[in-house]
Amino acid sequence: MASLITKLKQGKIPDYIDYVAQNEEIDRQILIENIINGLVVVPVNNLHKDLKPIAIGSDTRIKINANIGTSPIRCDFDYEEQKARTAIEYGADTLMDLSIAGDIARFREKILEKYNITLGTVPIYEAMIGLNSPEELNIDIFLKIIKKQALEKIDFMTIHSGLLMEHIPYVDKRVLGVVSRGGSILVKWMRHHNKQNFLYEHFDKILEIAKEYEITLSLGDGLRPGCTADANDEAQFGELKVLGELVSRCKDADVQVMIEGPGHVPIHLIKENIIKQKQLCSNAPFYVLGPLVMDYAPGYDHITAAIGGAMAAYYGADYLCYVTPAEHLRLPTIDDVKEGVIASKIAACAVDLSRNKANEIKRNKEISIARKNFDWTTQKQLCIDQNKFDLYLEKEKNVDKPPCSMCGKWCAVKE
Amino acid sequence: MASLITKLKQGKIPDYIDYVAQNEEIDRQILIENIINGLVVVPVNNLHKDLKPIAIGSDTRIKINANIGTSPIRCDFDYEEQKARTAIEYGADTLMDLSIAGDIARFREKILEKYNITLGTVPIYEAMIGLNSPEELNIDIFLKIIKKQALEKIDFMTIHSGLLMEHIPYVDKRVLGVVSRGGSILVKWMRHHNKQNFLYEHFDKILEIAKEYEITLSLGDGLRPGCTADANDEAQFGELKVLGELVSRCKDADVQVMIEGPGHVPIHLIKENIIKQKQLCSNAPFYVLGPLVMDYAPGYDHITAAIGGAMAAYYGADYLCYVTPAEHLRLPTIDDVKEGVIASKIAACAVDLSRNKANEIKRNKEISIARKNFDWTTQKQLCIDQNKFDLYLEKEKNVDKPPCSMCGKWCAVKE
Repeated sequence: MASLITKLKQGKIPDYIDYVAQNEEIDRQILIENIINGLVVVPVNNLHKDLKPIAIGSDTRIKINANIGTSPIRCDFDYEEQKARTAIEYGADTLMDLSIAGDIARFREKILEKYNITLGTVPIYEAMIGLNSPEELNIDIFLKIIKKQALEKIDFMTIHSGLLMEHIPYVDKRVLGVVSRGGSILVKWMRHHNKQNFLYEHFDKILEIAKEYEITLSLGDGLRPGCTADANDEAQFGELKVLGELVSRCKDADVQVMIEGPGHVPIHLIKENIIKQKQLCSNAPFYVLGPLVMDYAPGYDHITAAIGGAMAAYYGADYLCYVTPAEHLRLPTIDDVKEGVIASKIAACAVDLSRNKANEIKRNKEISIARKNFDWTTQKQLCIDQNKFDLYLEKEKNVDKPPCSMCGKWCAVKE
Repeated sequence: MASLITKLKQGKIPDYIDYVAQNEEIDRQILIENIINGLVVVPVNNLHKDLKPIAIGSDTRIKINANIGTSPIRCDFDYEEQKARTAIEYGADTLMDLSIAGDIARFREKILEKYNITLGTVPIYEAMIGLNSPEELNIDIFLKIIKKQALEKIDFMTIHSGLLMEHIPYVDKRVLGVVSRGGSILVKWMRHHNKQNFLYEHFDKILEIAKEYEITLSLGDGLRPGCTADANDEAQFGELKVLGELVSRCKDADVQVMIEGPGHVPIHLIKENIIKQKQLCSNAPFYVLGPLVMDYAPGYDHITAAIGGAMAAYYGADYLCYVTPAEHLRLPTIDDVKEGVIASKIAACAVDLSRNKANEIKRNKEISIARKNFDWTTQKQLCIDQNKFDLYLEKEKNVDKPPCSMCGKWCAVKE
């Protein structure tokens, strides 16, 4: 079966391209060219029929992702499904299911039955199930899992093929070493076997499956910095260079590809990080986790990430993975998911506004007019979280007083 | 009595200058020159003896302010005092008391007895007490209030002297008009009397009192944009130009001065806003309220302001007024104050880190090392909110399991 890029090159345009172009308010032909040229990805597994696809990359809205998934410590699919629902309700554009316990296939089936959402995974997590240590992993186990996940209609997969043996010495210089779970598994594997990363060595086999099922590859940054002191170091940029080479191989294979990025990055290094990624990776879409602009705000990392995410997106990142207040502390609750999604969404929408996206200009202007008119109903309809709006306003509601009590009789807005 | 700038010019250096220089890790002589040249202010009312002063401006830490104060709707000084305590506990560098009800003088006395903190006001609020409408205001009432507040040991005061009659036509072009309370009072006054702003006309009299008590003037932006659509418009920049002229008059009078700024500003206009302020106002310290980078996130404006505040400070703003989640919805509760202070503090500290401030590098590195070592005690000591740290960690605490449950047995950080 031909991949999306192959089809577009042949002039065979899937119907969903029109849907996406309309949604993004982008000229259809420009969208097609951007996909062919690798500036935009539209992740759609060719078995995933009732999906409402989204585009990630140049000139599109900034997208946000929410992670869900079971662990051996908390394996409750109903709870994870509630997280999915919450994430979607508050504006997540995609979900990644990182489940490593229970009947994962059934869970994904249920999620995709209920929601028309783009779904991603990190296959190395599932590949580790049943193994006693990273050393037991091999390419056959891995390929079996990505094929299984492809049949589960997963639209994009994180693959850590860029982390090589030659990067390991750089890791030892770090304050916090490796913090990516996938990255740490591969470092342990390479150290044990004294062999090159099998995901790099067998990248062609991964490309084959990706092409067959139209999986979009999200090249993972196994060496993403886990603290600001490690940002933009030789380890991260060394891996990024390899990711850039892999982008070319994806392009040769007509496989859609994006690049994952940090992590923890202090404000003054964010721009350099984004520019470097775009240069080294032929302007492939950039998918960042945060970045968190400081290290000592556990409990508030949705805010450190919203600051970093807004800056990263403003400088050119295309896709923000949410960070919840639970980061560094615990598994996220449903409330944490909500807080994380909203904070990321604020970062994304603020950048869309800065790019003069018509929908953003309209919504911001309309709520401002409603504010001028003391029209609380319209304000509520347009705001990012109607529940919180009610909760906050309720307390002040009183028949004798207007809800806006801040300025008493000296209200600035009232004439 | 001579003002701080006069004394410094004469080589008479108050003891607190050493304290400030040490605190900011700045060379004492550079600090003195920066104060003389108007690049830094150190607001200290000369009656305010037991204050631990802070510096605001070039090369100093980014400072944050929290507003407190009673209103006729909620006049509970104990509650406001709890807000003050909470704000200080979570890192507010200054407080502004915006009280307009109750025994304000006694409240301020109590605050300054309890806390060695820099205290600011917006005198026009108190000047309106007892009046039926803005038209009744005049320069004598106003001067009486700033003198009263000077005797209450207020260190800095917001004065809206830059909003002129010629700016009013610009206001009519706006989506949201005037949202500054002080600004709206003055616009009503000028419209009614068809006379120039009396705070501009009598600016010399204000300077006299400021000089006598060493009040630092914070030139208010009565035309700050109240929505992103109004950002960087003729109204705001028109007033800013006048503020720049008033800076020169402050300098001639050896009165310390800073400039207040927006408000709501979309991301792509923040840099221009900061650069313009610095150019027009001889690089006087810039004190911004937010800026909020979008309009439709009521309930989360501490986050929209943290994004804007971080960017503004990164581009050169010196001092951030906190914004709480209650903004646009209700009077802030103590929890709102806490959320607002922490969000602003994150923005401030992230920018300090980006400027390689030694204390920030140290604290971020230390918590990262503690994270690597699974040293939860040190992480707690170094984090921004120990209560939330405990709250989040507690739920996962279990004798059989480590508190960090995210990755189960595939923890990336553990060897």
